[in-house]
Amino acid sequence: MQKIERWGVLELSRLGKTDGNPFKDYTIKASFRSDREEKSITGFYDGDGVYKIRFMPSYEGVYTYHISGNFAHSIEEPTGSFEVGPADSENHGPVVVEGTHLRYTDGTAYHSIGTTCYAWVFQPLNLQERTLETLRGSAFNKIRFCLFPKFYDYNKKEPLAMPFERGNGEGLDSELVKTNEKDRMLFPGQKIEPYDFGFDYTRPNVELFRLFDKRIAQLREMGIEADLILMHPYDKWGMNQMGREACEQYLNYVVSRYGAYRNVWWSLANEYDFVLAKKPEDWEHYGELIFSIDPYGHMLSVHNGLKTYDFSRPWITHCSLQRTDFYLTTESSDRYLEQYHKPVVWDEICYEGNLEMGWGNITAQEMVRRFWEGAMRGAYCGHGETYLDEVIWWSHGGTLKGESPERLKFLSQILGEVPGIGLNKGEGAFDEVVGYAGGHSGEGMETCYDYSIHYLGVCQPAKRRVILPEDTKYQVDLIDTWNMTVTPLGEMSGFNIIQMPGRQYMAIRICKAGE
Amino acid sequence: MQKIERWGVLELSRLGKTDGNPFKDYTIKASFRSDREEKSITGFYDGDGVYKIRFMPSYEGVYTYHISGNFAHSIEEPTGSFEVGPADSENHGPVVVEGTHLRYTDGTAYHSIGTTCYAWVFQPLNLQERTLETLRGSAFNKIRFCLFPKFYDYNKKEPLAMPFERGNGEGLDSELVKTNEKDRMLFPGQKIEPYDFGFDYTRPNVELFRLFDKRIAQLREMGIEADLILMHPYDKWGMNQMGREACEQYLNYVVSRYGAYRNVWWSLANEYDFVLAKKPEDWEHYGELIFSIDPYGHMLSVHNGLKTYDFSRPWITHCSLQRTDFYLTTESSDRYLEQYHKPVVWDEICYEGNLEMGWGNITAQEMVRRFWEGAMRGAYCGHGETYLDEVIWWSHGGTLKGESPERLKFLSQILGEVPGIGLNKGEGAFDEVVGYAGGHSGEGMETCYDYSIHYLGVCQPAKRRVILPEDTKYQVDLIDTWNMTVTPLGEMSGFNIIQMPGRQYMAIRICKAGE
Repeated sequence: MQKIERWGVLELSRLGKTDGNPFKDYTIKASFRSDREEKSITGFYDGDGVYKIRFMPSYEGVYTYHISGNFAHSIEEPTGSFEVGPADSENHGPVVVEGTHLRYTDGTAYHSIGTTCYAWVFQPLNLQERTLETLRGSAFNKIRFCLFPKFYDYNKKEPLAMPFERGNGEGLDSELVKTNEKDRMLFPGQKIEPYDFGFDYTRPNVELFRLFDKRIAQLREMGIEADLILMHPYDKWGMNQMGREACEQYLNYVVSRYGAYRNVWWSLANEYDFVLAKKPEDWEHYGELIFSIDPYGHMLSVHNGLKTYDFSRPWITHCSLQRTDFYLTTESSDRYLEQYHKPVVWDEICYEGNLEMGWGNITAQEMVRRFWEGAMRGAYCGHGETYLDEVIWWSHGGTLKGESPERLKFLSQILGEVPGIGLNKGEGAFDEVVGYAGGHSGEGMETCYDYSIHYLGVCQPAKRRVILPEDTKYQVDLIDTWNMTVTPLGEMSGFNIIQMPGRQYMAIRICKAGE
Repeated sequence: MQKIERWGVLELSRLGKTDGNPFKDYTIKASFRSDREEKSITGFYDGDGVYKIRFMPSYEGVYTYHISGNFAHSIEEPTGSFEVGPADSENHGPVVVEGTHLRYTDGTAYHSIGTTCYAWVFQPLNLQERTLETLRGSAFNKIRFCLFPKFYDYNKKEPLAMPFERGNGEGLDSELVKTNEKDRMLFPGQKIEPYDFGFDYTRPNVELFRLFDKRIAQLREMGIEADLILMHPYDKWGMNQMGREACEQYLNYVVSRYGAYRNVWWSLANEYDFVLAKKPEDWEHYGELIFSIDPYGHMLSVHNGLKTYDFSRPWITHCSLQRTDFYLTTESSDRYLEQYHKPVVWDEICYEGNLEMGWGNITAQEMVRRFWEGAMRGAYCGHGETYLDEVIWWSHGGTLKGESPERLKFLSQILGEVPGIGLNKGEGAFDEVVGYAGGHSGEGMETCYDYSIHYLGVCQPAKRRVILPEDTKYQVDLIDTWNMTVTPLGEMSGFNIIQMPGRQYMAIRICKAGE
């Protein structure tokens, strides 16, 4: 009997009809059943007469399946069974929401350290390999990227492939693509003119989608969540102007194809409010559609440009934020946590780099500071890098040049030592932000006052008061978040004054001794 | 005939009665008259039987005066005259308000670069001399300090002198002062208990007030505004609990004594909201009192702790601010300018240093950045320094150790080159704050679009677009606000891309060529 691991992918392939438009004209489905769950899964057409169903089992045990649909006159091996064994030690299941925190399904903490490479899968293959190599050695456990190509400053080369075939049977003639290289990107105030971009949106380019299969699976094996951006404004090929029917078919295809990857998140759009051809009711419709067709309830949100989405919508699992203020970024986490009672994920807090645009020219120090400010508040942050070059991480991937990624790895280690699944912001002095261990899995969201981290940000004190209960001993550690050191200061109780180095970006960790 | 300069001080001294309490029991006044003005001036008792009147003439010309009052049975030389000549080149008259800007009375721009040494006049005299020496070489043209001594962390040594005599004829027995060294400082939530501190508030210690005479005059000669803090909370001697009558007499004394110094500003209180023994109506009463008795209409405001004062009050000339948010300081200038339509003076934006308190441990870079953020918005800022030591500038004066003062001098030079009397914030890219020359004296408050400074703060772009009208030439300069350099980039018009060093704290200055 075929064996897979829990939260792995069981893929079924069957040959079927090729006449007409198989992406649209025929269906394939399967029902899966075990002692502990029962799911109906929609498959997809993968070209060359092959129809596929991908299923992610949520439990161990023996599963049976039954394939149905009109994709074939007679379905070959319509039923079968397979065995689901324990998850590998590195496989903790999909990321889910617990209160305002994220965690893996098996209860393991997930301290999200994100990054962004919008169009990395549209770059030359050797560059994609380099990106994977960089990610492998990094702290990043989430990456945001687009399923549609990107046209924008520094992104004007032809993408590796287009997501749809050309209409009229012309397929993927790249010459034809090039003849339409008119800049069709839409910006606020720009008039939308009907324009035939020549794509047949009912025919996904399976070559490209197979590449995404591979990349998502590779990320999964590296323990990296794939935050798939389904739509975005930076386009000259018309994908930002696809109509209702085309979008529905595309979203169905994507959910059928990638839903079984445990590391998938759905980002309905990057900067949804800059996609001028779509209205609020469109986003609602597409969000609800994904919510209704995704059998696994993957993480799902919408990322803003200037105006944050209404994250209270029931289909939204978390706040996916871009800062909307120039000065305040992750310092505003409290506000969103209070307003929405959902995890707060700062997917854009400006990028480390030196581009001419303000969103892409902050220092490594500022990037790291924003991460710590967010982390202490129980929010999650995303990195990006924009040093002026031919290849820029933020969109192309490649190699990292900045100084923040190493520090984010250090932050990741510090967070990894926190008991429970995350931090809850607590009361502190006015010049510190204090995160207490909290959100213990299985114990609800209680805050644990025996474990706290006091982050001092831009302040540079030469000493500091540490006031503790008289009757309990605490281990006090000095953390240099920039130089990545932890200096134990010993056990303390009552009133203490500790010496500090008079540098910025320090933190004090206070843990009940012996815990 | 005696000659003084315009905006100088004409001092008249007359002997008078010494029986009873001359500070309280007798009056001295004088009327001054010239072709251009007429003023009635109240004098004050200076001890040893000497009564004084100080007058600052606002115009050139011949003045006559007439002394009156019951201070003497027979007034010696009750009338006289003197001549007022032109002001020295360094004397531009008192600072006044024009719109939301400050300027000197003669129309000269006043780009306020403040500093704070709360208790410098209560320090040993040689330290006071050192403070003056430091100020002489600095960019500071305003200094905030208290007329009452200060008791607070790092301020626990006995002050040089007390502002009032001891009651019961015991005068200024310092032994007696020491026996009352109980910490009487009040903090929010602390109960106010009636307590006799043993001072006779009707008897100012003229020795101390003579020292203030000297210091204010020395500052005046150095072109430095003396922002006199009249009341404050950090006290153990009871001055923060003085009653209505005592306060009135004190304020009358101070205004009579110092009103004629053109460089005087009245800061009714430092952190008024921490002075627990005073209620909102007290502040209103004292503010209106000063407003009504000050013959010159000196700058007058109230400085906040946590809650800003209602600067719309008619007796308030300007907003005297301490930041009320940990992250945002001078970035909030726009809000106050819009709300109050009065000059915005950020007297506390945290201090450069390394104290354990968050208000006293920012970097020099951050201090300078806050100054530039404020300046570009047409606001004014104050510096302070708190490096942990026996002598700390913020309260004691002495010598500066920090890196910001030199950069503030550079800022002062840059501002000194701006045409008109100040900057007005204009529209800019979202990652810059743009100050346009504005507030031209005599031309109202128009903004001059031919002269702008674009400050990029924490951003570190490697290049930048400079988009100018096609038909006009502009001189473009790159300003490194930290390294204090101005690099001319030549004349430009139309669309340009300029190379930037990829460092923080840069500004671009754009001036119409030939202007």
